[in-house]
Amino acid sequence: MTEGAVRELAYEDLVPGWRRTFPSRTISREEIVRFAREWDPQPFHLGEEAARRTHFGGLVASGWHTACLAMRMVVDGLFASSTSMGSPGLDELRWVRPVRPDDPLTLTIEVLEARPSRSKPDRGSVKFGYVMVNGAGETVFTQVAWVMFARRMPAKD
Amino acid sequence: MTEGAVRELAYEDLVPGWRRTFPSRTISREEIVRFAREWDPQPFHLGEEAARRTHFGGLVASGWHTACLAMRMVVDGLFASSTSMGSPGLDELRWVRPVRPDDPLTLTIEVLEARPSRSKPDRGSVKFGYVMVNGAGETVFTQVAWVMFARRMPAKD
Repeated sequence: MTEGAVRELAYEDLVPGWRRTFPSRTISREEIVRFAREWDPQPFHLGEEAARRTHFGGLVASGWHTACLAMRMVVDGLFASSTSMGSPGLDELRWVRPVRPDDPLTLTIEVLEARPSRSKPDRGSVKFGYVMVNGAGETVFTQVAWVMFARRMPAKD
Repeated sequence: MTEGAVRELAYEDLVPGWRRTFPSRTISREEIVRFAREWDPQPFHLGEEAARRTHFGGLVASGWHTACLAMRMVVDGLFASSTSMGSPGLDELRWVRPVRPDDPLTLTIEVLEARPSRSKPDRGSVKFGYVMVNGAGETVFTQVAWVMFARRMPAKD
């Protein structure tokens, strides 16, 4: 029995069409620079002045920063109260538009598909579509992620 | 003219078959926990004791931590001395095996395809395959990434 499987959202709950929108968050100028110094030190992420001279015309968040923020939103708003067992991977991650400082970012995820594991009857994989929009309602980030969840009750087969 | 385009690696240099392997790095136990607290606070990333009770059997790095480390390796070893203009996205990101504390991680990237931009003659897109292996030579992480690079000389068409 997987820990906490009884009271949490489990594989069985995450059926195609299930959707959730998470509270908006922003990324500040300081956070953009701090993240970029650690993981993605390119001129358009490191400071306003250098960024102004690039094709972005100003400071933009690292795409990895946006992706990590999406992860944090989903952990806080779903995984932390679920039987999540981690992810084997992603497809079609797209940085559609630049993310600018202090723009409110809103993420919605939707279950696209769910498959019980063939080899392990205690779990199943759920395919989510992610769409993050900015304050103007423009899409800035999308991805498709597979996540494993424990089943509430082991299958009988 | 894009800044620094003359002396740096440009679109024209990144032809199919071009490969580079970056110096190995490790992720410490403390770094795993610190990253997870900020971006991916799930039990298998937050501490050895809680992680031992999960299906991972011990502390593993967040997949986003591994992906960010790969980004940092490529910025330091390629993008910083290139005409990189950022990435529109990824395909087929796979967390193949868990990344454990202090395991030496070695990333190799290879150009799979290159396409001049149809609408903007000053740039082109390069498709890279990424493979990261651990100290035992096992693949832990792969992805396919498109990255835009400025051309050394604007095309004449």
